[in-house]
Amino acid sequence: MPGTPPTRFVYLGPEGTFTEAALRTIPAAERGLRTPARSVPEALEAVRAGDADAALVPLENSVGGAIPVTLDELVTGSPLVITREVVIPVEFVLAARALTPLAGIRSIAAHPQASAQCRNWLLANVPDAVIVDVLSNAAAAISAAAGEHDAALCAPIGVPRNALTVLAEKVADHADAVTRFALLSRPGPIGEPTGDDVTSLAVSIRHDQVGALLAVLTELAVRGINLSRIESRPTGVQLGTYVFFLDCTGHAAEPGLGEALQGLRRICADVRFLGSYPRHRLTPEAPVASPRGLSSTDFTDSAAWLTRLRQGDLA
Amino acid sequence: MPGTPPTRFVYLGPEGTFTEAALRTIPAAERGLRTPARSVPEALEAVRAGDADAALVPLENSVGGAIPVTLDELVTGSPLVITREVVIPVEFVLAARALTPLAGIRSIAAHPQASAQCRNWLLANVPDAVIVDVLSNAAAAISAAAGEHDAALCAPIGVPRNALTVLAEKVADHADAVTRFALLSRPGPIGEPTGDDVTSLAVSIRHDQVGALLAVLTELAVRGINLSRIESRPTGVQLGTYVFFLDCTGHAAEPGLGEALQGLRRICADVRFLGSYPRHRLTPEAPVASPRGLSSTDFTDSAAWLTRLRQGDLA
Amino acid sequence: MPGTPPTRFVYLGPEGTFTEAALRTIPAAERGLRTPARSVPEALEAVRAGDADAALVPLENSVGGAIPVTLDELVTGSPLVITREVVIPVEFVLAARALTPLAGIRSIAAHPQASAQCRNWLLANVPDAVIVDVLSNAAAAISAAAGEHDAALCAPIGVPRNALTVLAEKVADHADAVTRFALLSRPGPIGEPTGDDVTSLAVSIRHDQVGALLAVLTELAVRGINLSRIESRPTGVQLGTYVFFLDCTGHAAEPGLGEALQGLRRICADVRFLGSYPRHRLTPEAPVASPRGLSSTDFTDSAAWLTRLRQGDLA
Amino acid sequence: MPGTPPTRFVYLGPEGTFTEAALRTIPAAERGLRTPARSVPEALEAVRAGDADAALVPLENSVGGAIPVTLDELVTGSPLVITREVVIPVEFVLAARALTPLAGIRSIAAHPQASAQCRNWLLANVPDAVIVDVLSNAAAAISAAAGEHDAALCAPIGVPRNALTVLAEKVADHADAVTRFALLSRPGPIGEPTGDDVTSLAVSIRHDQVGALLAVLTELAVRGINLSRIESRPTGVQLGTYVFFLDCTGHAAEPGLGEALQGLRRICADVRFLGSYPRHRLTPEAPVASPRGLSSTDFTDSAAWLTRLRQGDLA
Repeated sequence: MPGTPPTRFVYLGPEGTFTEAALRTIPAAERGLRTPARSVPEALEAVRAGDADAALVPLENSVGGAIPVTLDELVTGSPLVITREVVIPVEFVLAARALTPLAGIRSIAAHPQASAQCRNWLLANVPDAVIVDVLSNAAAAISAAAGEHDAALCAPIGVPRNALTVLAEKVADHADAVTRFALLSRPGPIGEPTGDDVTSLAVSIRHDQVGALLAVLTELAVRGINLSRIESRPTGVQLGTYVFFLDCTGHAAEPGLGEALQGLRRICADVRFLGSYPRHRLTPEAPVASPRGLSSTDFTDSAAWLTRLRQGDLA
Repeated sequence: MPGTPPTRFVYLGPEGTFTEAALRTIPAAERGLRTPARSVPEALEAVRAGDADAALVPLENSVGGAIPVTLDELVTGSPLVITREVVIPVEFVLAARALTPLAGIRSIAAHPQASAQCRNWLLANVPDAVIVDVLSNAAAAISAAAGEHDAALCAPIGVPRNALTVLAEKVADHADAVTRFALLSRPGPIGEPTGDDVTSLAVSIRHDQVGALLAVLTELAVRGINLSRIESRPTGVQLGTYVFFLDCTGHAAEPGLGEALQGLRRICADVRFLGSYPRHRLTPEAPVASPRGLSSTDFTDSAAWLTRLRQGDLA
Repeated sequence: MPGTPPTRFVYLGPEGTFTEAALRTIPAAERGLRTPARSVPEALEAVRAGDADAALVPLENSVGGAIPVTLDELVTGSPLVITREVVIPVEFVLAARALTPLAGIRSIAAHPQASAQCRNWLLANVPDAVIVDVLSNAAAAISAAAGEHDAALCAPIGVPRNALTVLAEKVADHADAVTRFALLSRPGPIGEPTGDDVTSLAVSIRHDQVGALLAVLTELAVRGINLSRIESRPTGVQLGTYVFFLDCTGHAAEPGLGEALQGLRRICADVRFLGSYPRHRLTPEAPVASPRGLSSTDFTDSAAWLTRLRQGDLA
Repeated sequence: MPGTPPTRFVYLGPEGTFTEAALRTIPAAERGLRTPARSVPEALEAVRAGDADAALVPLENSVGGAIPVTLDELVTGSPLVITREVVIPVEFVLAARALTPLAGIRSIAAHPQASAQCRNWLLANVPDAVIVDVLSNAAAAISAAAGEHDAALCAPIGVPRNALTVLAEKVADHADAVTRFALLSRPGPIGEPTGDDVTSLAVSIRHDQVGALLAVLTELAVRGINLSRIESRPTGVQLGTYVFFLDCTGHAAEPGLGEALQGLRRICADVRFLGSYPRHRLTPEAPVASPRGLSSTDFTDSAAWLTRLRQGDLA
């Protein structure tokens, strides 16, 4: 986390998508400069080149899964770290140029992933409408505004931007679907733990062996570190080599996670630190408690005990 | 694997994509009926409803990762099992209506995932061409054939189908990129092991705890079962519950994997068996050997020893 | 457990020690023939040779620890199995030919292990008496009866046998000290589980490595088997090779322990089954419950599930 | 290890046993004051009270196993630490007042443990001799010198001391039997690692559960620490609580073992440090190498990496 807060933001465009909506929930970005990028690699390149201070890109979607291009970009090129995560509900609306009865809708423009997420609603409510694939949620709204199709399945942010009218709200089949975005910056000293943090890692193991992954999880478990996500990806480089993307509970400045990081460093082919940052919770929820004996205080106490022991104080 | 071989095949369409190419590598499908489906859910529904005997759908791409919709469909609805996997190289070609020097190409139609996989080649060879996003590899070929764009980035299968000419072959940045497809059928008695098999599972654990995943891996490791893939997906149903998709080395008819399956059944919230089938290897390669003491013979021997022991024969 | 109950018993002599007292708690032995042996090897040899049906020998003492000669005899020679354990409180008395005030006692005959177990009592109550080492608890009683010493530290059983008078009861420093004896027979079909059984094993691992022992414990833990005792002994045969004596919770006829036994057989250099037998509890106490999902019923259910799965029934 | 080397030594007497022989292999003890104690507790009490600088007591015998009284004394009372181990071969000789043919020997005085260790030799060479139990190896030699018995089974050290003649050397059945002694002192700053050290611990776990012991071993395994010995003993205090005596490869001043000690401290009911000291090898042998990635250098490197990472240096 650099000393000066970022002011120049880049994000995965185009304008009017969920990524822009997510970016605007960050106060510094709402005040700062926001530039859309054509792709995730382009957004990250802008930060690496110093043309932007931070990039917001999608990391995973609770329905669609990880965004492979983001993961791949994080493990190649010069290091970037996540300094903040933003989780926003994925709400889709059905919108049109003017208020229209659903029965009159014959064609709906939609990004294929959007129509997949609303499939049951569409079958139940507009069974006779033709769904026309378009290339983004923003493109869907634009085509409805242009009258190319009767309606659009789009993000709420696309409605005012294209002067549309909402025909139906929250049409996604999974009411609690979310998308998680990462704000990426060039590395700096890690900040202070907040007590409810996530640490993201990309860990390479040598073989497609359950033993190697078991060893990775054991390094974490022994220090009481929980995983909130694990994702394997074959490295393009070499067959039989995997990269695991891990989201761990805790902060790299804490003793337990620090010890676990060292352990991974010793046994893995490669460990790439992707940042420690506060967990974004949509609803207030207590952080997962450390297992008995494995809190930061326990780590500090056991270190003090060892120091005394080494000096001959066994009381 | 049902008693009678499948004759009616459905696959993720449209025609002219990699999925159709993959299907045609299966002799029974080459002889049988092949029907494209509009989506993965539609393809699987055809098999569940008995309108088709088997469906071929993409499972994962070595560059783009897992296909979430396929994974999600496999864990919902009535059970289907993978009876065969097909792995094919993902080769992209640049094709046009007629032979043209690359320097003359101003616009290229491409599916965004295709252009992502060929990014470096495009930058190096057609730096000035505009890349126009389209909705599928087949659509790219069609639009080039229609003269809407100067060229298309498409699958080799799209070339003869649209009477195109290849301008450049193997333009993907990762020469060894592959896509893996699953042939899905209604469940039947599992077949015989071939000695080089994969067993796919979807395993639900109760909490986002490293301990629960560690327990799953330990059940496998203790029986000498390797993992060739692991993928976590949050279940839409409930936060903090994960489904892990595991590809294990071995066959459910073998004693070691059978014991491991029982172990998972006992400790997991849910275990869904997704099939045991021969591993498809693009290049001949020996299967991973069992760890010492953990071959099928060792399992059979230890079972015989226990039987003798229970009868009082301790020699 | 052979079909006909044993009638000819041999035990570690001499008469009048705790072993004889323990033997007489077994109804069949109280009715049958009881012959003292000069040593543990001699007792076991009598059973191996068919001269006796069963031998009772000490296995461990809660104060003095394991009886090495018993452990060593169990892992050499033709196999014998424990069919019953007997746990009796180790109570020491101070006895003399006639009732005498403690202040008048100048010399006490005692086996060194007995005086060690009563050290604090002796210091507090007969601080001026000289403790004279003798070779057994029985020898102590005999020498006091012969007037060689003023008193004896001995087992209660030695009092009537030598017409002594008790000067003080329960003089051991640890009020709840116990000795555990094993009744050994030639192997036969294992009996039925009682629901609160112990299974004893001698397991040889190849190297002095934490990893090998970890693997042994993992085989047990994965099947929900608890350890109530573990003891390592170097094998005389070869340096760096260890035998572990394990007392496991459960019975070899149960599916979970049966699976664990097979697992040990596969990974260990050698597994010697030393018997499954009811746990002897001095005070009524519930047996340790199986961990969730790891009861015998859970094992039976998961086996039935696997059978259905292999037949294609995935419901 | 106190600043000034010990000069006043106490050892388990009487004189003329293996313990005295072991003590005299230590140069400082050969030069210093050597006082026999009547028992292990008495020897340790002399050090605790400051009446002696160090006590040599037997720890384990490769044939007879652990010496329970020593283990028990180490975990009660004020802390003492092992600063040195001495391993000596257990050689027994058959000795008499004058050179006599074996055929003429009718009675042999022997400590029961000694005759047990020479059982096969005695059966083969003096089958007709009566073995008379006496209370120590020293007592056996004394009684032969006094003419009470024709010969004695004793330690070589007893021969010159009692002016005996050796009739047969190395009569023990296990040629490589050894006894291991511990030199105990009051705690002081731990010394420097030699590269081939042992660290002894007494670890209390809460329940008789395989899981708790598995956790202990995992803490060690994760840091690449080997076990050369494990011994469980029930604590007299409370049923179901065990103390494990562990001999670990390594030194408490090393980073890997230091981290493991902290880990044990966090998860165990109690950890008692019993000393880090050079391993005594009877024959030159290379120390066990650390597993890959787990040498002291690897620990130092990973700590430096974490420091850099926390400062934002991810290169």
